[in-house]
Amino acid sequence: MKPVTIGLLGLGTVGQGVANILTRNAAEIERRTGRSIRLTRAAVRNKAKAEALNLGIDITTDAQSLVSDPDIDIVCEAMGGDDPALSLLHSAIANGKHVITANKALIAVHGNELFRAASEKGVTIAFESAVAGGIPIIKALREGLTANRIEWLVGIINGTGNFILSEMAEKGRTFDDVLAEAQELGYAEADPTFDVEGIDAAHKLAIMASVAFGMPLQFDAVYTEGISQITREDVEFAEELGYRIKHLGVARRRKEGVELRVHPTLIPERRLLANVNGVMNAIVVHGDAVGPTLYYGAGAGSEPTGSAMVADIIDAVRCLDADPAHRVPTLAFQPDALTPHVMLDTANYQSAYYLRLHALDQPGVLATVTDIFGKLGISIEAILQKEPEMVGELSDDSIEVPNVPIILLTRRVREGLIETAIERIEALSTITQPVTRIRVESL
Amino acid sequence: MKPVTIGLLGLGTVGQGVANILTRNAAEIERRTGRSIRLTRAAVRNKAKAEALNLGIDITTDAQSLVSDPDIDIVCEAMGGDDPALSLLHSAIANGKHVITANKALIAVHGNELFRAASEKGVTIAFESAVAGGIPIIKALREGLTANRIEWLVGIINGTGNFILSEMAEKGRTFDDVLAEAQELGYAEADPTFDVEGIDAAHKLAIMASVAFGMPLQFDAVYTEGISQITREDVEFAEELGYRIKHLGVARRRKEGVELRVHPTLIPERRLLANVNGVMNAIVVHGDAVGPTLYYGAGAGSEPTGSAMVADIIDAVRCLDADPAHRVPTLAFQPDALTPHVMLDTANYQSAYYLRLHALDQPGVLATVTDIFGKLGISIEAILQKEPEMVGELSDDSIEVPNVPIILLTRRVREGLIETAIERIEALSTITQPVTRIRVESL
Repeated sequence: MKPVTIGLLGLGTVGQGVANILTRNAAEIERRTGRSIRLTRAAVRNKAKAEALNLGIDITTDAQSLVSDPDIDIVCEAMGGDDPALSLLHSAIANGKHVITANKALIAVHGNELFRAASEKGVTIAFESAVAGGIPIIKALREGLTANRIEWLVGIINGTGNFILSEMAEKGRTFDDVLAEAQELGYAEADPTFDVEGIDAAHKLAIMASVAFGMPLQFDAVYTEGISQITREDVEFAEELGYRIKHLGVARRRKEGVELRVHPTLIPERRLLANVNGVMNAIVVHGDAVGPTLYYGAGAGSEPTGSAMVADIIDAVRCLDADPAHRVPTLAFQPDALTPHVMLDTANYQSAYYLRLHALDQPGVLATVTDIFGKLGISIEAILQKEPEMVGELSDDSIEVPNVPIILLTRRVREGLIETAIERIEALSTITQPVTRIRVESL
Repeated sequence: MKPVTIGLLGLGTVGQGVANILTRNAAEIERRTGRSIRLTRAAVRNKAKAEALNLGIDITTDAQSLVSDPDIDIVCEAMGGDDPALSLLHSAIANGKHVITANKALIAVHGNELFRAASEKGVTIAFESAVAGGIPIIKALREGLTANRIEWLVGIINGTGNFILSEMAEKGRTFDDVLAEAQELGYAEADPTFDVEGIDAAHKLAIMASVAFGMPLQFDAVYTEGISQITREDVEFAEELGYRIKHLGVARRRKEGVELRVHPTLIPERRLLANVNGVMNAIVVHGDAVGPTLYYGAGAGSEPTGSAMVADIIDAVRCLDADPAHRVPTLAFQPDALTPHVMLDTANYQSAYYLRLHALDQPGVLATVTDIFGKLGISIEAILQKEPEMVGELSDDSIEVPNVPIILLTRRVREGLIETAIERIEALSTITQPVTRIRVESL
């Protein structure tokens, strides 16, 4: 049988991973598929640099010629960015190519139109490599857990952010200090906004939620909060309460609607997810039949991401000329069964909360604060009242009243109620600083 | 389109899980598959008991009539045991039914012949539910990690054993004490041999290894060692050295051949796998491209196991009348590419070792022992020499020399060498008891 031919858009970190795997494991892959798979062409910006890799393939700077090349069966997009990636994928589909992409932003934002085009043309579009690198999480959600009504999923899906929070927790370092190191190590970009403000995680969360719940992609509905405001104190107080702080993507389907949110989160230290450290990723998925399952692995990197792309290639090869009905549906559900779900606004999210207050060290403050919660019907799970924070020693004639940090853990409650509580607390004359609020998930 | 019809062999714990899921999630499943899936018949031993479940399906005691029923498309075997399960599956295949089984012993021992029969008949045979309950580990190995040359996998794949070891570690209890409780809770059978001696884990390991490495099933090649000899002391000493003891299945592919082994194992306490407690299961898989990935979830139970069976049903439904070439190969590799691998004998296994010695408290014992290791070229990673074990106080005129436990951790070494070292140590007059040996995997 004639080999299946692959054309690669981009020969950066991910593209080279794909090329290395297809070469090194060619025999093992052929034992699996029964067909030879050959990378024959790559389109790049810098031809000399790509040719220096000595891959023995045709290198072109004309990406358009690659996606219309009649000798290419499958196009893999590993170039990133919005354009020309989007138009190239559309061209590839229009030319009847199966397409595979690692481009999470592109799928999260333009996925619906790309899937429609692929479906009309009867070709596969696959994106395992766009979410959590080498972890086969799309496979698990789309195929492994099909018996389940998936109720929620929670993931550490940005390695940079997890590296920063892990270092802060393990070594008592500050956010800025670790970020600078992460940039030196190449874990974080010069502009770290995408990673530390949760935009990258939001892309991945939007994709996973669509596959899990059977709804069109809705990236705009993801609420996003970064980790740059997390202090050493919060990390330490969380620890004292038996929690770790992780930057989580959370997708939950409730009767009233869907919550899609990315934010720093306290999770109990005994949970496996709390022990996922460094640049690793992990996702917990809760299905009504199976209960919780967890998937862990490298969320980025050349060969881990390449591993996911090549798995998609092998799936596509198996069904290259199959009736599309025999393929797994792109978003796990039949296209005509994808239903737009109600998206909840943040006031209707539900979560438990960690609140850090700074109060004057006066009798009665705690009673006033707990009274606010009581009146709103918010249950308190734990209170920590710390020693006063004093700068230097107080002399006898000092009239300065020291600040006391008060830490509260609430039970699960509607977010709107917490906002009201915070407003009322901040209005108290005994409260000296804005309240710090971090969500808590018990998993 | 006409609904796909399912016939169930057995309506025990697992069978009921399948029935519940297919009923409760019928709409969600149809959104996924685009077809209605209906459980129409079940074959059981006790008809009255099954009818009392009020499932609204035909109940028969004539299993043979079910597997030859022209109105049944897919047969699910959830009865367990060797016979008549084996002959019923053969009949179902001969009648052109797709078959799905949760029967790990049957697949581990008779899988090769069943797969051959299914392949000749062009039907699917699937067994996700036979390994690690609801964790989609066969899906991950067979499809998610296809880009990789899988080098090793290590798993906690027996919930009963893990419950016992977790309780021993967390509460300082003895093996016998926890086993008795596990039997009361229904986690362990009246005869716990299958679970605690590692036979159940060996079945699952044999299946995973075949799928991971692309070789015919070879259950006989699995070396098996149980956990009934693990003492509280070993659990405590392991902890002191920074390790936990887990009952692991280990499959490793080395240049020289394959190791398949089930045994108690020390693993570093910081590894996620060391923190998988209670009846939960988890498997770490190491691929050459992706590195380590981990899969965690419920390894048994009605709906978790049912979840895996129903996922297999949905895969089968998708390719019900597809060209078999479009299906994933049963053992992940093309049948003609399955190569029998060399199976190593235990002397050629490689591992690090924890050794517990009991020596007379005399000067020079440690030197004699370490000399034995030195001469054999075995490197020592750590030594713990504990306080003498004394029963009551020694009086001045006592001539009893107390016993000292000595704990040694070796580096990675060939098992044959360790056996030699142990022989030489046990021959020393200063050594008072047989040496305890537990393998160590650093993962």
